[in-house]
Amino acid sequence: MNTNAAVPVGVLGASGYVGQELLRLLAAHPGTRVAFATAETSAGQMLEGHQLVKAGDAPFAQAEIVLSCLPHGVSARYVHEVRAHGKRAVDLSADFRLSPEAVYGLTEVARPRVAGAELVANPGCYPTAALLALLPLAQRGLIDTSREVVIDAASGVTGAGRNPTKELLFGEVAEDYRAYAVGNSHRHLPELQATLAREGGYSGDLVFTPHLLPVKRGILETIHVPLTRVLDRATAEGLYQAAYSGEPCVQVKIGGMPSLQDVVYRNRVAIGVAPVQNVRRPRLTIIAAIDNLVKGAAGQAVQNMNVMLGLPETLGLAC
Amino acid sequence: MNTNAAVPVGVLGASGYVGQELLRLLAAHPGTRVAFATAETSAGQMLEGHQLVKAGDAPFAQAEIVLSCLPHGVSARYVHEVRAHGKRAVDLSADFRLSPEAVYGLTEVARPRVAGAELVANPGCYPTAALLALLPLAQRGLIDTSREVVIDAASGVTGAGRNPTKELLFGEVAEDYRAYAVGNSHRHLPELQATLAREGGYSGDLVFTPHLLPVKRGILETIHVPLTRVLDRATAEGLYQAAYSGEPCVQVKIGGMPSLQDVVYRNRVAIGVAPVQNVRRPRLTIIAAIDNLVKGAAGQAVQNMNVMLGLPETLGLAC
Amino acid sequence: MNTNAAVPVGVLGASGYVGQELLRLLAAHPGTRVAFATAETSAGQMLEGHQLVKAGDAPFAQAEIVLSCLPHGVSARYVHEVRAHGKRAVDLSADFRLSPEAVYGLTEVARPRVAGAELVANPGCYPTAALLALLPLAQRGLIDTSREVVIDAASGVTGAGRNPTKELLFGEVAEDYRAYAVGNSHRHLPELQATLAREGGYSGDLVFTPHLLPVKRGILETIHVPLTRVLDRATAEGLYQAAYSGEPCVQVKIGGMPSLQDVVYRNRVAIGVAPVQNVRRPRLTIIAAIDNLVKGAAGQAVQNMNVMLGLPETLGLAC
Amino acid sequence: MNTNAAVPVGVLGASGYVGQELLRLLAAHPGTRVAFATAETSAGQMLEGHQLVKAGDAPFAQAEIVLSCLPHGVSARYVHEVRAHGKRAVDLSADFRLSPEAVYGLTEVARPRVAGAELVANPGCYPTAALLALLPLAQRGLIDTSREVVIDAASGVTGAGRNPTKELLFGEVAEDYRAYAVGNSHRHLPELQATLAREGGYSGDLVFTPHLLPVKRGILETIHVPLTRVLDRATAEGLYQAAYSGEPCVQVKIGGMPSLQDVVYRNRVAIGVAPVQNVRRPRLTIIAAIDNLVKGAAGQAVQNMNVMLGLPETLGLAC
Repeated sequence: MNTNAAVPVGVLGASGYVGQELLRLLAAHPGTRVAFATAETSAGQMLEGHQLVKAGDAPFAQAEIVLSCLPHGVSARYVHEVRAHGKRAVDLSADFRLSPEAVYGLTEVARPRVAGAELVANPGCYPTAALLALLPLAQRGLIDTSREVVIDAASGVTGAGRNPTKELLFGEVAEDYRAYAVGNSHRHLPELQATLAREGGYSGDLVFTPHLLPVKRGILETIHVPLTRVLDRATAEGLYQAAYSGEPCVQVKIGGMPSLQDVVYRNRVAIGVAPVQNVRRPRLTIIAAIDNLVKGAAGQAVQNMNVMLGLPETLGLAC
Repeated sequence: MNTNAAVPVGVLGASGYVGQELLRLLAAHPGTRVAFATAETSAGQMLEGHQLVKAGDAPFAQAEIVLSCLPHGVSARYVHEVRAHGKRAVDLSADFRLSPEAVYGLTEVARPRVAGAELVANPGCYPTAALLALLPLAQRGLIDTSREVVIDAASGVTGAGRNPTKELLFGEVAEDYRAYAVGNSHRHLPELQATLAREGGYSGDLVFTPHLLPVKRGILETIHVPLTRVLDRATAEGLYQAAYSGEPCVQVKIGGMPSLQDVVYRNRVAIGVAPVQNVRRPRLTIIAAIDNLVKGAAGQAVQNMNVMLGLPETLGLAC
Repeated sequence: MNTNAAVPVGVLGASGYVGQELLRLLAAHPGTRVAFATAETSAGQMLEGHQLVKAGDAPFAQAEIVLSCLPHGVSARYVHEVRAHGKRAVDLSADFRLSPEAVYGLTEVARPRVAGAELVANPGCYPTAALLALLPLAQRGLIDTSREVVIDAASGVTGAGRNPTKELLFGEVAEDYRAYAVGNSHRHLPELQATLAREGGYSGDLVFTPHLLPVKRGILETIHVPLTRVLDRATAEGLYQAAYSGEPCVQVKIGGMPSLQDVVYRNRVAIGVAPVQNVRRPRLTIIAAIDNLVKGAAGQAVQNMNVMLGLPETLGLAC
Repeated sequence: MNTNAAVPVGVLGASGYVGQELLRLLAAHPGTRVAFATAETSAGQMLEGHQLVKAGDAPFAQAEIVLSCLPHGVSARYVHEVRAHGKRAVDLSADFRLSPEAVYGLTEVARPRVAGAELVANPGCYPTAALLALLPLAQRGLIDTSREVVIDAASGVTGAGRNPTKELLFGEVAEDYRAYAVGNSHRHLPELQATLAREGGYSGDLVFTPHLLPVKRGILETIHVPLTRVLDRATAEGLYQAAYSGEPCVQVKIGGMPSLQDVVYRNRVAIGVAPVQNVRRPRLTIIAAIDNLVKGAAGQAVQNMNVMLGLPETLGLAC
């Protein structure tokens, strides 16, 4: 590892939960080395063996590719600077996810475009799970657009970032559970709708309600899909197996449903499906789980980076 | 307390989580005293100052009313024995919830019937929250029956009982979150459907998916309701305020949503509502929260007992 | 409740964890009513049915007794103002614990002095458990002062207050456990030493190490005591039973050890003792547990208030 | 990975928490492949890509080395069978830790003996942390044997195994904290004493009290050491830095104390030290942390296996 042959990678915004996870993954990655890692208030400190510098002091020229974990609104400026140095970038913020400047990096869907991209917008955590769960049905025209798709998503608290607020104190979150952005007001919804339309041809309505779970990491989404025709369980499972045949980072659960245990510390989405009994019209319930810090952020960024660099797609990743 | 004037109450099945909670509530109840408390494997042990006896040895004659926390399938036999002694009973199991022998004890809805009942079937925990959330809309004909009502419910682990199984170990549940009975297979569904039809006139479809939360107590339900007409937030909140005006155990949250913090250790359902934006047809999302051991079980049993005995309805209860 | 006969009580600093707990306890207290409750940034909001006012606007004249949950360093000023109005006070901060102005309110030890006090300094949470555990041995001269008493104490996070800091985020505390103030630097140590000397005649050395537990509430202290002579288990247990005979808020566990479950949401200290085997010189290990918010703060304050007002000592308290 | 050159490894007892962790580590280990993995009640199921067989059906001949995670009392029989096939073994149970048949595999202390061993007894989780913390002082004669060493150790619940018992249910463990085996009755104590005597020449008394933490993994030990002479902080830290210079799996924290966060999912012990103020005689407090499943079990077993096979000591391990 970390030999001369290793690709030098820059990391912007390394002190948050996503940035730390990214440094942890890169530490175990045999094809790259960390050229620099930035942080603002923690500049000067050591993290995973790297001394943090301020983003304004980052030696962009020393990296071949830069991964940005900077906050939304801040990231775009530095990513443009990276691009001005002629370097490729993966941006983990929301700044480019709806922008034609970047390839939307849901790896399983956009692999060839990611390979050739100069700038990849890493998908949001909630959309990653929802899209991988819904696209196989959408692409086959199986979703009944006269009824809404309902998504209840629950996320561990690292998804809310590391800035200290009363709402995120252990004394508030432990033994609690809450919904937020109720009524379709979450900022991930446009990203989800746009991608479902573009990649799946779905233009029906969505109701998306996120919840805050008293766990550190993991997202589980319970997705209620009205169908245009009845799918029995074997057919539905077979459809997902076919859709994701050969995909190393997608696990289709047969005869069971995933839980967070199946996915934490792994770059994997796990998907299970069940037809709904005792209702008049056909419906499928999908359970999809990811680690918000891995497949939902840092892991998928490494997966995209591997594709961009022509390395094995899961190099350095436990899937 | 515990004077001669206090009503003697018998408790069947005191060693589980619900039974313990019931003894805890009765210990602080100024109008009753515990005549006996039963348990099987823990018989002989002390609990909240009472020596547990086996249910077969319970001195039914010494109680004026008996509350049964025995398991489903076991409770009916003992409750019949209580009735044979001419004593009134509240059964917290599912054994009488669909039976004409008993009054279904959702207190806010059935108060006069509960007052005169010899046998009250205490509602299930999930239905308690769902019914109090949905009945105001159902009774006003506001639910669009051409689209399904979708309920995602999340419960703390005490709702699953105290029998040791691998699935309920701390090592499995902590940092995990899972759905179960996916596809409308939970045994609470018929109770919910029957009561919605009987008390609310609703005969449309429901999709009910329970989840296991890594918390000790509390249920939060996210309820997605298709509406027959648009309700803005103020109108929806006003509707609930009117429906529950004067109800001591119902809290309608205005301008916010409840979380488990609002309800644990209280005999309260907290309800918040929000219209759904960015969809073509009118929808309301309801968040309803209860403590599964209190308003979802032991607390509502005490509330019903108070009504049956002509005591103040919330005596001994923190609402 | 809350009748004209009820004693009016003022609460300073109601929005922190201790203040909230105090309002919760007073809501269930049949002999008092809340005359006012203060908070600074939350002024104007409702809490347990009371509208919060700023401490500077508190109508001291309307209360017969004032309980202050204000922070250390801030409390003293307002308590002096309370006293200037001729009102009695219980101060829950550290401001008067080492001061001759106040009676140190470890109720079980200072009951007669508390009864007549104008100002009571409510003990710190860690000292409350340690003192009730150690005083019976100290008062009997059973502690070998040639060897140190070692106390490892673990506290839930509400003990650290409600100000948002990164260290107290759920993402940091969950699944973590840490010692702090290692090497005898905790500010509770002088309070503990002074009281052990004054009430127990103990002037030997203490080593006190606090730890942060990933739970919301509760303190468990593991106290290692070198003895001047051998005590077998029955003798040691008997000694504690005798020392606390008739005490409603002390539970001596016989043949077992307390855990947090035994004490949370109760105004109780639970104490268990075990002689140490396989060592050359006699030693006793004591486990003492309290709820840091109840017997360690708000509950003991109510206990002291009851004593001061001539009410039954445990009125409104679950012990 | 998993090429012909990879060493075939057998795993006995793969379905418990330690066995699962071992399979997880071996899945990422580039120098070995899993020849077989056994389980009893889960035989036939797949785990990390391996079909589990019963231990009685294990093809011992196909492995070059066997790692046993079988329970205490069961493991010895199968390890003898492994040895009868002429294969080397690492036993993670307690069965050989006090036996002259095996090398006691605290890697940092016994590296050369481990390298040549046919059978290695992997140390217990509690002793691993305590020994690495205490041996540097013991070996230098710095511990005052006239006063006892006091160890308060807290462990996550995976240390208690995966057999379902009421005491380990989430409903019991969450929000709880308890001591157990109080009074020096834990079965790890003889292992700890014997090794301290043999490797450190320490024959003084120990008081060891384990506690159950509401976390999934991790052990933190607070170790109170009476010293023969004063050590200031810099001297104490320097002593540990010198003792563990070049050790890849030992982290000496300078100017701070470790917490579980520093060690979970890593094959590392983290050690911090602080002199005790305000006491008459010199004392040092040591905080030592490990992941009970990694450095305390499966990780140290892989570390030992690497040494036995002549592979880089940390191959496949994150330290």
